[in-house]
Amino acid sequence: MVNKLGRKLLIPLEGQPLDIQGFEQPRELLNRIPEDLTSLLDLVQRPVVSASQFSRAQLLQLARLASRYETQPQHSVRPLTGKILVSAFYEPSTRTRLSFESAWHRLGGDIMSITDPASTGIAKGESLFDIGEMLNHYSDLVVLRDSNENAVYEMLESLRIPIVNGGNGTDEHPTQAMADIYALLKWRPALCDASIDSGQRIRFAIIGVPGVMRTVRSLLILMSQFAPAFEEVVIITDEAEPFAAGQREELESAGLCFRISDDMQKELPQLDVIYINTIAWLGDDYQELGSRYGLSAASPLKAGAAILHPLARGAELARDLDGTEHNWYFAQARGAVFMRMALLSTILKTFA
Amino acid sequence: MVNKLGRKLLIPLEGQPLDIQGFEQPRELLNRIPEDLTSLLDLVQRPVVSASQFSRAQLLQLARLASRYETQPQHSVRPLTGKILVSAFYEPSTRTRLSFESAWHRLGGDIMSITDPASTGIAKGESLFDIGEMLNHYSDLVVLRDSNENAVYEMLESLRIPIVNGGNGTDEHPTQAMADIYALLKWRPALCDASIDSGQRIRFAIIGVPGVMRTVRSLLILMSQFAPAFEEVVIITDEAEPFAAGQREELESAGLCFRISDDMQKELPQLDVIYINTIAWLGDDYQELGSRYGLSAASPLKAGAAILHPLARGAELARDLDGTEHNWYFAQARGAVFMRMALLSTILKTFA
Amino acid sequence: MVNKLGRKLLIPLEGQPLDIQGFEQPRELLNRIPEDLTSLLDLVQRPVVSASQFSRAQLLQLARLASRYETQPQHSVRPLTGKILVSAFYEPSTRTRLSFESAWHRLGGDIMSITDPASTGIAKGESLFDIGEMLNHYSDLVVLRDSNENAVYEMLESLRIPIVNGGNGTDEHPTQAMADIYALLKWRPALCDASIDSGQRIRFAIIGVPGVMRTVRSLLILMSQFAPAFEEVVIITDEAEPFAAGQREELESAGLCFRISDDMQKELPQLDVIYINTIAWLGDDYQELGSRYGLSAASPLKAGAAILHPLARGAELARDLDGTEHNWYFAQARGAVFMRMALLSTILKTFA
Repeated sequence: MVNKLGRKLLIPLEGQPLDIQGFEQPRELLNRIPEDLTSLLDLVQRPVVSASQFSRAQLLQLARLASRYETQPQHSVRPLTGKILVSAFYEPSTRTRLSFESAWHRLGGDIMSITDPASTGIAKGESLFDIGEMLNHYSDLVVLRDSNENAVYEMLESLRIPIVNGGNGTDEHPTQAMADIYALLKWRPALCDASIDSGQRIRFAIIGVPGVMRTVRSLLILMSQFAPAFEEVVIITDEAEPFAAGQREELESAGLCFRISDDMQKELPQLDVIYINTIAWLGDDYQELGSRYGLSAASPLKAGAAILHPLARGAELARDLDGTEHNWYFAQARGAVFMRMALLSTILKTFA
Repeated sequence: MVNKLGRKLLIPLEGQPLDIQGFEQPRELLNRIPEDLTSLLDLVQRPVVSASQFSRAQLLQLARLASRYETQPQHSVRPLTGKILVSAFYEPSTRTRLSFESAWHRLGGDIMSITDPASTGIAKGESLFDIGEMLNHYSDLVVLRDSNENAVYEMLESLRIPIVNGGNGTDEHPTQAMADIYALLKWRPALCDASIDSGQRIRFAIIGVPGVMRTVRSLLILMSQFAPAFEEVVIITDEAEPFAAGQREELESAGLCFRISDDMQKELPQLDVIYINTIAWLGDDYQELGSRYGLSAASPLKAGAAILHPLARGAELARDLDGTEHNWYFAQARGAVFMRMALLSTILKTFA
Repeated sequence: MVNKLGRKLLIPLEGQPLDIQGFEQPRELLNRIPEDLTSLLDLVQRPVVSASQFSRAQLLQLARLASRYETQPQHSVRPLTGKILVSAFYEPSTRTRLSFESAWHRLGGDIMSITDPASTGIAKGESLFDIGEMLNHYSDLVVLRDSNENAVYEMLESLRIPIVNGGNGTDEHPTQAMADIYALLKWRPALCDASIDSGQRIRFAIIGVPGVMRTVRSLLILMSQFAPAFEEVVIITDEAEPFAAGQREELESAGLCFRISDDMQKELPQLDVIYINTIAWLGDDYQELGSRYGLSAASPLKAGAAILHPLARGAELARDLDGTEHNWYFAQARGAVFMRMALLSTILKTFA
């Protein structure tokens, strides 16, 4: 038996320094984006199902609002006091659920969580239509995650309060994509500007499969609103056809340029941003990335290159990158709360 | 693979109109029932286990208070700020749990939920007596649902804070019955009056088994407080003996008149109210209604007849009724929150 | 079928009298311990992993603060309004979880609970290091219970917000021990004094196994801060070697005197305090106490002797003791909330 008493001395009583990415970059955004709340009015009391609902102007204003929440936490006046969120995660999640719940709590609201599919309705399962009808009367906003991509649409049929899609099967995850864009804007504030200097154009890579990764699907839609800023988008994958039917064409018609590559090592030195994801959802199951697409501090990364990852991570993203300048995934996770605060307070029109 | 991007255009950005049953009818009740809070004082700090605890006067005052909450939501001053609800659902439920939690939150209180039996106490299970003793110190009120009908009585042995029975096995579900009565009063406000005009007397049917359906058991007890208003209560069932031992006699001595029928189609055209329930609990399991007792828009319903259902529904209640005048089950679900607000604020004496 | 309606008359409408142990004893402590908040400043924003982190002065000040919360509940100004607790119980628990959550709510804060290991992270499990990094941004304090004793240390590697150990495997459970000490101080306020009169020295027994019971491990560490007050500590057990390697030596060097006995009946008449525990954790499983170590009203207890038990109890602690003067375990459970309020408000420096 180990002597447990001895290890007590190892407790790290001194905190680590706070990462500064949470303060300087959002302040830069706050200064750079002119306030224009009128573009946000179209989002008031509206459901958020797809990334395709957002205009460039709305994304910038939401990022501006997120920056305000991130840099001026003391200014919160708990505008959602008395408002009730139903946080319905029929597909397990901690990260996304806590991010939404933290955002709602920081705005002053109350929360009712549904975390266990088996705890719901009649034993045989109640229709999402009926659950939606009930939630109209019990709450002010619903966040829904479900492994069935149709779930959010079924609930929408009866809902008269706003719903936010927290991930629907392999389809979309729009608020994750909004957090991704917020991280991108903090990393390269020039993205906010009306025209991009050619020297600032970004070589962006996605290690993953756009056709079946919902975070990637939504992100590409949002990126298409900033298409001139991207020199090209390199899809790094083994899949011969990584896009869903029509997906590539639609994104290209919006201005994105794609190239597919299976040679990550060759691409890395030219890339400004690498977006990497652990898993692709396949119905109720998931598939992991091949092990040869892992990043570590030993990878040939360009100076100043940013790595984004929606987390949770697996072996594909080594911890030795955490302390490097490439680590923007922690800032991305941090910013997710503020971006969701921005979205939720906009939908409930308490942002003014 | 489906092109998912294409369907984004189908999002219903316009909200549906709010149902008006939530406003006009409760206003009518508020005007019709004279305020008399003294009758509520007997409920202060008391446990609510059975529908038999309530007098007609108390039910009317609770309905009046519910009407006030339903029509004047802006008047809430969060009177339960700092009060803690333990929401203990050892038997799975979403609808009842969220209804109680929504009511408590709207009154300003905080909540601790227990939704998973397996997460409780020592691995072998702690006695409800001991859990009750603990809850005395950790909270201000307990809502308990348990598939064992004795659970609420076991906890009562040690509790010194109020408990509300959220459904105990096949025994009772008093707050559901209160929500049912509230819907009835909104549908026919004349029920509030001291004497009922003979032309207003109600032919009420229950499609179900009063002996084993807890919602029906509790509802009949409350209906007996309004016995003169009911011309007769028709039990529509295949069961030869749908009552529990002594149940029918006790209800008849309180003034209700029963008739049993197995011919739903013949009865429907004469019925003013049809109360239909999906399932009967049998210990830890449940039994569904026979499929021949389903209602739909094609059923021969009397003009103005109201359908009540405690929900969640199964196939026995067709969706094509939702848009008809017979749909009082959605108003019933909506009102459940306000009736529970009335009860909870009364128990904690914050209603004044 | 039982006639359920008949039993409705058995509802105990009158509450039992409140136990007075919750008011007189803490008031005594409040008067006896001189206020000295400076000793608490070392706990501000610090993690609480082990009982060995606390000095005698800190324990007394925390007990004083707990006494204030217990006797002056009306003085609460909800100092944690806007602060978010993550209540992460990867090992099932209701008692400890609700105690922490009740304490946090009474201080005005909001809570996000994780109660189901399976609901977390990616399907294969996210590292606690990454979860900790996430929680830095989503919350203000974490309470963690995990059956793996290393879990709290893994999370500490990335956490920059405070964490409180809510039980880590067979290692420690420091806040339970603090509640135990608080109960002891209320039972014998002379323990607060700088020197103990020899007539007041305590014969303390532990029915259990210090080496593998985390509550006992932590309690003995805290007791060593009050070593002169204990005449001896009798370990009542069948185990030949009930201590972990080095544990006894470390505690003896801090001044505690141990004796091991397997004859409970012989020891009981001389004992002032008996601490009894149901189970010993063994990795993910547990072992119950032998049935011969049970206490009941028939046990040969000394007049005025106090029984402590961290609860939940099994057969080893008979209910017929509940109404006797020996029952300090209910006061111990009650006080746990106030002691946790004291600790949490100290860590977040809102105690002044």
